[in-house]
Amino acid sequence: MQAVQDYIDKNRERFLQELFDLLRIPSVSADLAYKSDVARCADSVADHLRKAGVDKVEVCETAGHPIVYGEKIVDPAAPTVLVYGHYDVQPADPIDLWETPAFEPAIRKTAIHPDGAIFARGACDDKGQMFSHVKAVEAMLATGQLPCNVKFMIEGEEECGSSNLASFVAGNRDRLKADVILISDTSIIANDTPSIDCGLRGLSYVEVEVTGPNRDLHSGVYGGAVANPITILAKMIASIHDENNHITIQGFYDDVQVLDSAERTELNKAPFDLEAYKKDLGIAAVWGEKGYTTLERTGIRPTFELNGIWGGYTGEGSKTVLPSKAFAKISMRLVPNQSSDTITRLFSEHFTRIAPQGVTVKVTPHHGGEPVVTPTNSRAYLAASRALEQTYGKKPIPTRGGGSIPIVALFERELGLKTVLMGFGLDSDALHSPNEHYGVFNYFQGIATIPWFYKYFAE
Amino acid sequence: MQAVQDYIDKNRERFLQELFDLLRIPSVSADLAYKSDVARCADSVADHLRKAGVDKVEVCETAGHPIVYGEKIVDPAAPTVLVYGHYDVQPADPIDLWETPAFEPAIRKTAIHPDGAIFARGACDDKGQMFSHVKAVEAMLATGQLPCNVKFMIEGEEECGSSNLASFVAGNRDRLKADVILISDTSIIANDTPSIDCGLRGLSYVEVEVTGPNRDLHSGVYGGAVANPITILAKMIASIHDENNHITIQGFYDDVQVLDSAERTELNKAPFDLEAYKKDLGIAAVWGEKGYTTLERTGIRPTFELNGIWGGYTGEGSKTVLPSKAFAKISMRLVPNQSSDTITRLFSEHFTRIAPQGVTVKVTPHHGGEPVVTPTNSRAYLAASRALEQTYGKKPIPTRGGGSIPIVALFERELGLKTVLMGFGLDSDALHSPNEHYGVFNYFQGIATIPWFYKYFAE
Repeated sequence: MQAVQDYIDKNRERFLQELFDLLRIPSVSADLAYKSDVARCADSVADHLRKAGVDKVEVCETAGHPIVYGEKIVDPAAPTVLVYGHYDVQPADPIDLWETPAFEPAIRKTAIHPDGAIFARGACDDKGQMFSHVKAVEAMLATGQLPCNVKFMIEGEEECGSSNLASFVAGNRDRLKADVILISDTSIIANDTPSIDCGLRGLSYVEVEVTGPNRDLHSGVYGGAVANPITILAKMIASIHDENNHITIQGFYDDVQVLDSAERTELNKAPFDLEAYKKDLGIAAVWGEKGYTTLERTGIRPTFELNGIWGGYTGEGSKTVLPSKAFAKISMRLVPNQSSDTITRLFSEHFTRIAPQGVTVKVTPHHGGEPVVTPTNSRAYLAASRALEQTYGKKPIPTRGGGSIPIVALFERELGLKTVLMGFGLDSDALHSPNEHYGVFNYFQGIATIPWFYKYFAE
Repeated sequence: MQAVQDYIDKNRERFLQELFDLLRIPSVSADLAYKSDVARCADSVADHLRKAGVDKVEVCETAGHPIVYGEKIVDPAAPTVLVYGHYDVQPADPIDLWETPAFEPAIRKTAIHPDGAIFARGACDDKGQMFSHVKAVEAMLATGQLPCNVKFMIEGEEECGSSNLASFVAGNRDRLKADVILISDTSIIANDTPSIDCGLRGLSYVEVEVTGPNRDLHSGVYGGAVANPITILAKMIASIHDENNHITIQGFYDDVQVLDSAERTELNKAPFDLEAYKKDLGIAAVWGEKGYTTLERTGIRPTFELNGIWGGYTGEGSKTVLPSKAFAKISMRLVPNQSSDTITRLFSEHFTRIAPQGVTVKVTPHHGGEPVVTPTNSRAYLAASRALEQTYGKKPIPTRGGGSIPIVALFERELGLKTVLMGFGLDSDALHSPNEHYGVFNYFQGIATIPWFYKYFAE
């Protein structure tokens, strides 16, 4: 293993520059204006896989953005690891809040990253983490130290719903045969506190449109006499959380798995400093469902979040308009055993039911995903745990993350495979936000840890 | 008077083309991107006044957009009419809803305007109505039939708060001396039902900003545990109207003049067809304060309207962000004896008070204006009433409009002058909306009626 680490150390600067090149491509999958950039990014990932020594590399076209596939079979008798990651990124908006441009990576030191962090959209989510696997496999192959077979499936639609992944997986069951799925797209608690995510929330993402009058009106002439769709939308949104911030959608909690008090006590043992949390976010108080801690609110409870709202005049100055329409983007995070389809249906029914006379409501589902809990006693989990212990010097804590990687449930269903979520980022890395970053330490810690996983998983 | 009408008839096509030229200038005062267009429009108005025979025409610079002044003194002993109007217009957004471009005037027939209407931003509000005065004065001067002195004060900031008009008026008290102020910037009930607006609502326009965390967050990682500023803004907005749509801002109604039942009965005698109103707006039900009719809700009651809202991701597709900030533009229409400053202060205090822990709130006042009621027994009102009766064949009904022309209260205070609101538009002319229009009939009816006002006012 020393040879692998030596190789990594020797190629450190190149590994950094190659990630920078990848980060310069604005592969924003949600916005079709970036379609050619997304395609260029897929080609670049394929190229890097080939150069790393991976075989049968293919940029697989889909109805949306392509999926990059590649494999290296070292021994048909050895176990096979299927690496999943994504090369697409979130939109960079609001772009004026970036200290350096979103697609011009720059290294700056921060309090949490004293050795420097790479600032760029996708640095952590997920280009940096995904690329750690490419570089780790390159290091293992270059030194003749790859003890398992490896397959790569790197998609380009994770940030917009992975719409075409299900059909790709269904159509490639043989090619994707493996013993475990390995994903680095989650976080550890802190750089001195490794952890492994064992639960992912599901997702129901919807867009709503509330229509009042059939045209924008003069708010002086009609105001006070015609339902204003912004006011009505606000009232409808406001009613979704009751005074305890419990979600009022009928049937919303019916399928929620309730943890017993022992499980909740265990979960709350994870290090968490409320004052540091509030200070980091600049807030005077946390918020959430009564009766639950912050770790529980993000880990084991479903949520209802507004991701965007717009309507009427939003330009400079003032315009006295009573608008015809108001819109919102809403996402609900789901926990076992909620189902994305059911929750989307319950929301649609509820939202339509509570709409008052004088407005009409349209609900458009965007995408969804199922919640999942991964086992902590599998061979793969134990291999990941030992690998992290090796490089961090501490046994990792199993945690429940708040995010969603909807394809984990899909893989389990379609391929019959369990997943290990061996992430290397930090929650504070501003994922989906301006100034997203990824610690240089974290990037290389990922590259160094992955070979240990292969070693222990092969044993 | 026949000579005046003959002159109007003879120059009909030119009067139309000149208005078209004025409408082609995108004089959007709220948006500084249009600053040079606004200036160009002022020059054009000045030019038209000069050509009409008006003296001492001057484009008076202000700290914002210029005010066009001009006067014609025919006899120092004759009464003087001060015409106020505005050449600036509302923004054209949302531009994609215009059937023909906002600044390329086009004539189309509609159900309400079988003789055709001029579609363009500002056609009715207020270029078309303001220009009727220029053309009426031209017709009277050309035929030697102007029986009063006339002064014009045409401003360019009515749609963004008339910020610099007060200092102009205060600095030009002598120049602006007159016996009455005449404004055409309101509506009649219908083309066969003339009316004169005798009340204008005041205005308090504010912008609010709600800040949650100090940066945009990943809604999966932080959702459910940190106050979402969109959700909180929605809850705050929702709480402003109670279950009877009564406004809950503390002290909001304290100064509202309550009409007695006789006055309310009189007000409700104005022709109003609820079914036609709903059908025109495409709504299943009207909305508003319990216990009041639609005419009362827009005429004698104050309102709280959302003019715009925005926050988070509003682009294509989805983004799972918990945003740092959410914003709204809000206007409150005021009735006698509410004061704009007081209501703005009461709102700011209330909105700050109801903000929960976990967010901070900033309220920025945009502009305001005082409500006003004009007398129905003055010489000027009676002259306007007779003028409309002359050209419409029916005595006009005194009404209470819902809109605001804040400068009416200003004129009363600074110049000691009462105003006559002799408007010629229709509420259905899509003021402030896409596809704003002004009936060709209404335009020429204005030009024909104004000379009768001068005649009767001089008698």
